[in-house]
Amino acid sequence: MAGNPTACLLVIGNEVLSGRTQDANIRYLATRLGEIGIPLREVRVIPDVPETIIGTVNEVRARFDHVFTTGGIGPTHDDITSECVAAAFGVPWEPHPEAWARMERHYKPGEFNAARQRMATMPRGARLIDNAISIAPGFTIGNVHVMAGVPRIMQAMFDSLAPTLAGGPPIVSRAVHARGLPEGRIAEGLAAVQARYAGLDLGSYPYYRGDGNGVAIVAKGNDAVAAEAAIAEVTKLMAGLGAAPVQGEPPL
Amino acid sequence: MAGNPTACLLVIGNEVLSGRTQDANIRYLATRLGEIGIPLREVRVIPDVPETIIGTVNEVRARFDHVFTTGGIGPTHDDITSECVAAAFGVPWEPHPEAWARMERHYKPGEFNAARQRMATMPRGARLIDNAISIAPGFTIGNVHVMAGVPRIMQAMFDSLAPTLAGGPPIVSRAVHARGLPEGRIAEGLAAVQARYAGLDLGSYPYYRGDGNGVAIVAKGNDAVAAEAAIAEVTKLMAGLGAAPVQGEPPL
Repeated sequence: MAGNPTACLLVIGNEVLSGRTQDANIRYLATRLGEIGIPLREVRVIPDVPETIIGTVNEVRARFDHVFTTGGIGPTHDDITSECVAAAFGVPWEPHPEAWARMERHYKPGEFNAARQRMATMPRGARLIDNAISIAPGFTIGNVHVMAGVPRIMQAMFDSLAPTLAGGPPIVSRAVHARGLPEGRIAEGLAAVQARYAGLDLGSYPYYRGDGNGVAIVAKGNDAVAAEAAIAEVTKLMAGLGAAPVQGEPPL
Repeated sequence: MAGNPTACLLVIGNEVLSGRTQDANIRYLATRLGEIGIPLREVRVIPDVPETIIGTVNEVRARFDHVFTTGGIGPTHDDITSECVAAAFGVPWEPHPEAWARMERHYKPGEFNAARQRMATMPRGARLIDNAISIAPGFTIGNVHVMAGVPRIMQAMFDSLAPTLAGGPPIVSRAVHARGLPEGRIAEGLAAVQARYAGLDLGSYPYYRGDGNGVAIVAKGNDAVAAEAAIAEVTKLMAGLGAAPVQGEPPL
């Protein structure tokens, strides 16, 4: 995975930071980005504050190959992502001819008002990200991909964006789990397996279910053969500790 | 809210960034922190990489009044939060006498092994954060509060930590919603209300339900009277646009 392009996600919006809204975009994008080999390496949830958005965009677009943002591209006063991204890139924030034309056609006469016109106003040089659900597009500028916060619209935007991204080898995952096995008993043997598979990330995740607690061990990396071999070793380790390992993740 | 102490949350763990695990801690802590008047101003989700953890802890502990971390304090090789926090503070990572004694008593002879001893090893000067569920404590050093990633253990740790934190005035919230009202129609009037209530954050959140779409407007701040007055103005605004406003958040 060391050679894969990297991604950072900015979740922009007071509603996640205040606890009003349960984020539903992090896990979706994490999964999709792993599949196309652009693993998510950091997420930041930041408020609707211009200097925070501008500063954060500039910091992370320099550090990661791709930056994805969700939220703040609607028509209301708290939707300031687009103008902040323009400021971050130091380019004018101006009507995007294609977005403007589409939205003007979409609305009835008189309904393409000043608030909605903001959704057709973008950093100069932005390329539209279409979506099958709403008329207002997202956009890409440089390595920054600006998407809606509403999950089904964001997902539709990512569907049209993903084929345009040059990914790396997909991240594959193999797992094994065992009930009744405390992490503290498998930890030492697991560290030895990790040491033999430096190209993999071996994660240890306890789980708590009504019908019994246990631990799941997950191997992730680009090399499916290595991931399977590492999980086979972990399976033996679990059995050697008297547990009954089951391949795959524990059922929800 | 400008005078309230601020909080940053670090969610530490590859499992959230890979999409394996849906985060369940952000919303919980956001809500609890708002209630005690220490609003969450930023969240970062970062991987189990020492230099990332150390660098991020040092950056955010200088910028926020409180830093909360979740994840990475178990017994396995991928649990490296505690030693990274010690490195960030430049102090030794060493057995904590009280945590060590408690865990030694808890385990049967021979079971307090090297892996479990890691959970009793902490930055010098750490103060324990107890919890009613597991034997392994979290800890506070400086303004950094290190908690478990498993939600019910994290919540138990926060329960014992919260009374020790000097909060500010609680963040209160008032809301009104209306079906069938597009954000693009209320945006202009809403911006005018926001302009009259500079001490409040007015958020506009579209919702999509099987039985109808609509928009919710939420006012947040320290001043309940102002929040109620702002929501009363938004209610009038909605009615003036021909919608049927309903007080409170839309039902889930």
